[in-house]
Amino acid sequence: MTTLQNVKYNADGLVPVIAQDTETGSVLMLAWMNAEALQATLRTRRGTYWSRSRRQLWTKGESSGNVQHVKSVSLDCDGDTVLLAVHQTGPACHTGTATCFTGREIG
Amino acid sequence: MTTLQNVKYNADGLVPVIAQDTETGSVLMLAWMNAEALQATLRTRRGTYWSRSRRQLWTKGESSGNVQHVKSVSLDCDGDTVLLAVHQTGPACHTGTATCFTGREIG
Repeated sequence: MTTLQNVKYNADGLVPVIAQDTETGSVLMLAWMNAEALQATLRTRRGTYWSRSRRQLWTKGESSGNVQHVKSVSLDCDGDTVLLAVHQTGPACHTGTATCFTGREIG
Repeated sequence: MTTLQNVKYNADGLVPVIAQDTETGSVLMLAWMNAEALQATLRTRRGTYWSRSRRQLWTKGESSGNVQHVKSVSLDCDGDTVLLAVHQTGPACHTGTATCFTGREIG
């Protein structure tokens, strides 16, 4: 176990967050959270992030309906990355693919 | 498919990289690559990263022996996150746990 107090945010007050599908094991996406987004995620159990382009909180699925039901939230050994285990409703990627990495192999 | 030319590095010339164990499906760690580290990873098929603290390239396992054999390299939909599928030799975390997230649940 670890605690919220151990999260180390970067100079912009953000931490990278990996969302992994708890049923398939697929890595769905990487997004960013500030402290408010992380607290909202823990409270509501819906994946909630900070949009760096729009500069606002967003709950995954608020427009698409493809929400993330959060099963667990873990912090890595040095406190600067978060891993969410989620039940993903529908495709995770805004392009319509199952994950943001589907079919995007470099090598 | 996508190409190396589509990678978008941040202001520091870095991209976050998720390493996932191809056998267990576990998310092992998040680290960072610059263009040189990514090219080295593709060429050598060993997970090679940029250490932000030491400001140098490092190949995972160069001191511990716990190397990563890279099976595939994928880029996400907006080009700013890399996902490695790896065969991880030994524990991935420098603390000795299987992954950097093992036993570090917040909620």
